[in-house]
Order: sequence, then structure tokens, then C-alpha cells
Amino acid sequence: MDEAEALRRLGEARVGRLASVDRRGGPHVVPFTFALDGRILYWAVDRKPKRSTRLKRLDNIEANPNVALVVDHYDEDWDALWWVRATGTARILVGGGERDRALALLREKYGQYTTAPPDGPVVAVDLVRVSWWEPSQPGR
Amino acid sequence: MDEAEALRRLGEARVGRLASVDRRGGPHVVPFTFALDGRILYWAVDRKPKRSTRLKRLDNIEANPNVALVVDHYDEDWDALWWVRATGTARILVGGGERDRALALLREKYGQYTTAPPDGPVVAVDLVRVSWWEPSQPGR
Repeated sequence: MDEAEALRRLGEARVGRLASVDRRGGPHVVPFTFALDGRILYWAVDRKPKRSTRLKRLDNIEANPNVALVVDHYDEDWDALWWVRATGTARILVGGGERDRALALLREKYGQYTTAPPDGPVVAVDLVRVSWWEPSQPGR
Repeated sequence: MDEAEALRRLGEARVGRLASVDRRGGPHVVPFTFALDGRILYWAVDRKPKRSTRLKRLDNIEANPNVALVVDHYDEDWDALWWVRATGTARILVGGGERDRALALLREKYGQYTTAPPDGPVVAVDLVRVSWWEPSQPGR
């Protein structure tokens, strides 16, 4: 794997897990769906009934914009495992052209958004560092 | 889902994602395999060639034992999604009966460990708070 391949796998992953740090310095992690545009990753605060979680994530990001995320492949053949991780800084988009573009990318990637488009803020994560691992070839 | 069911799903999950906070207060997240014994979760620092990652995780835990973890089910039918999260405090076991018991639990859950038993430290995470989510019924 090289960085281009790592970014390709990141962009194609259907789900990732996003870690942030809460106001008390504690870790927080949650699965999330996202779309990747170059080195900017977008996820939408959607309509599903998990309001408290949603706000926690946004709270954390407002207090500390540093996030980390991982996408990975689990397989019972442990020689087939891999992961791609990234660190980044998050920005909350409550409107504007970048949010509109991000929502279009999310709809394009996830048909699920066509019937129930997200109507809340979008979070943009500017990727800072991308790393990857597979059994034969750790990277970065 | 109730807490007993959440713990059952946590214990049966083949992979989870573990978040910690590094010495500079930044988030860190990585996929991990683990075994659950009641409300204590164990994972082994194994032999695979990801030394720097391994040490980073242990470094983080030594500096700040607070961790968060998530197991989840992703499905293209978003009504079938669920996750179980937990926060906990981590202890590094370099030897002793609890480490031996943890390694036995890990070998029992993962046949992969039979041929290549982990020989490094084991990390015990004492679960503090368990929460869960599914579309119809957010919990805790």
C-alpha cells in the first residue's frame, strides 16, 4: 500500500470510526459514514434518533478540533487484515457552498441519503496525516 | 437492546475499535481484537509487525488510562445498524495469573492465536460505562 492506495481505500470504505477528545480530555469513538474529496473528509449530522451522541461529537469538535479516524478490513484470515488511519482537524459547516458540495458527495456515495437527505450541519475534516498497515507492509 | 444484550454483542464481536488519548491530548484510534470476561475486556499486544503502533497505544495508556471502544454492525440497510460503546480504564499486565487467564480467553475466542500465541503484555480494560444505539431504540 502507498498513500494513494490508502486514500483510495479510505474513500471507498462504507463506514469508518471517528475518535475525538471530550472537554475533560477523555476519548470518544463512534462509527460514521463519510465521503472523501481529495484530502477533505465530510460527514453529515443526520436525522437519525441519536441526538445526544450527535451533540457530543459536535461539542467535542468545538472544544478540540483534532480528530482521528480509521477504516479497516477484518477477516478471519489475519494475513488479509488492513487498516488506514488518518488524523485531521474538523470544521463545522452550517451552510454555504462547501456544505452543499459535501452533501452532494454524500448522496452520490450513499443511496440511503436520497430518500432522507441530511439537514443538519456537515463536518469537514482536513486530513493532516494518513497512515496504513497491512501484515506484510506497515506504512508511514 | 438492554445492557445485558449490549455486553453480549460486545463479547461476541470479532473486532472492535479502541480510542485513546496521546500525551499531547490528541485522539488515537485503531482496530483491535479482544475477549470480554464479565466487565473486563482484554487485548494482547501481539507479535505482528506493527511495533510503532503497538508502543503508541501502550504509551498512551501509560500516560492516560482512559479509553473508549466501539463495536458495531454496518449494513446497507441503515435500519439494521447498531453499535455498542464502552468507556473504561486500562491496566497493563506484564505477567501473573490475570494475564494467563486473559490469554486463555483470547485463544478460546480466536483460533488464530493457537498457532501464534501472543507473548507480549496484555491490556485489561475495566469497563466503566456501556452505551448502545440502534435506530429504534437509543440506550443510556
